[in-house]
Amino acid sequence: MSASQINLEGLIVSIPDHPEPGVVFKDITPLLADPEGFEAVVDRIADHFKDAGVTKVVGAEARGFMVGAPVAYKLGAGFVPARKPGKLPREVLSESYALEYGTDELQIHADAISADDVVLLVDDLVATGGTAVAQVKLVEKFGARLAGMGFLMELDFLHPREAIAEVTDVEVFSLVHVE
Amino acid sequence: MSASQINLEGLIVSIPDHPEPGVVFKDITPLLADPEGFEAVVDRIADHFKDAGVTKVVGAEARGFMVGAPVAYKLGAGFVPARKPGKLPREVLSESYALEYGTDELQIHADAISADDVVLLVDDLVATGGTAVAQVKLVEKFGARLAGMGFLMELDFLHPREAIAEVTDVEVFSLVHVE
Repeated sequence: MSASQINLEGLIVSIPDHPEPGVVFKDITPLLADPEGFEAVVDRIADHFKDAGVTKVVGAEARGFMVGAPVAYKLGAGFVPARKPGKLPREVLSESYALEYGTDELQIHADAISADDVVLLVDDLVATGGTAVAQVKLVEKFGARLAGMGFLMELDFLHPREAIAEVTDVEVFSLVHVE
Repeated sequence: MSASQINLEGLIVSIPDHPEPGVVFKDITPLLADPEGFEAVVDRIADHFKDAGVTKVVGAEARGFMVGAPVAYKLGAGFVPARKPGKLPREVLSESYALEYGTDELQIHADAISADDVVLLVDDLVATGGTAVAQVKLVEKFGARLAGMGFLMELDFLHPREAIAEVTDVEVFSLVHVE
């Protein structure tokens, strides 16, 4: 099967009641472990943004690294990790965001992005959009231009595009939609 | 500057006394954020093992994802994360390893590697070799063949090759050596 024909959904495993009752966890690791599936994921996201002039791809800890880094490579861009507090050793810019209970925070090294960079956000999953919104605000702190966002999977029923539309009008592109 | 000429060491930042006095932390994030540096890292590791028949690249949480995933993409292989306990949602195989104080553990999904896979271990850094040795033992539990190990950086003064040689005779290939 060629990469252009592969059925990505068929390689994502649904796990009912994980991590808590009523939640269906979508496990993308079988898709990434499949050579043709992995290639298709990276190629489709990268090809979609190939004319956007992307210079840096930002991926969030930790599954975002697995998709964002190869997309950066394919685009000829640099890869910039957005990490949890305490992981980056030098000066950072930070953005907090709300979780169901409490808050979390993402950080990027202060010298990792410059004002003339064109940034693509890439992640494995967009659910409520909370992490994506935090990353948009974080990239804005660098004065860089956001080119768009590419996700392997989008949980439409949590309406992430509504949350994202409150902070940016860039394109949101997802390979797999869960309604 | 072409990717073949780029000086990788010049893009790695040394941070004295981090995370504790007497330790010099090597920060690879500026290298990954540099488009030509990042491309050179991925190309040089992937090219070195391009004839090894690699079907799966294993990368350890979390910086190993940033290097391992694009190397897997470049080789046309699948990417398999080796994660800390509690991160993978289905049945796993595990391997514990000693830290300076206490132990840690790496896990891979039980269906992520099969006995006919050819596995390349990729990580950003090999220091004492403890994580690498644990990954070798973990891959052996799947019955798969190990093709080799590729690292962005090797801390020669901690003698990781001696530790690795106790569990495997596959090739260890590192782009940058710190003596």
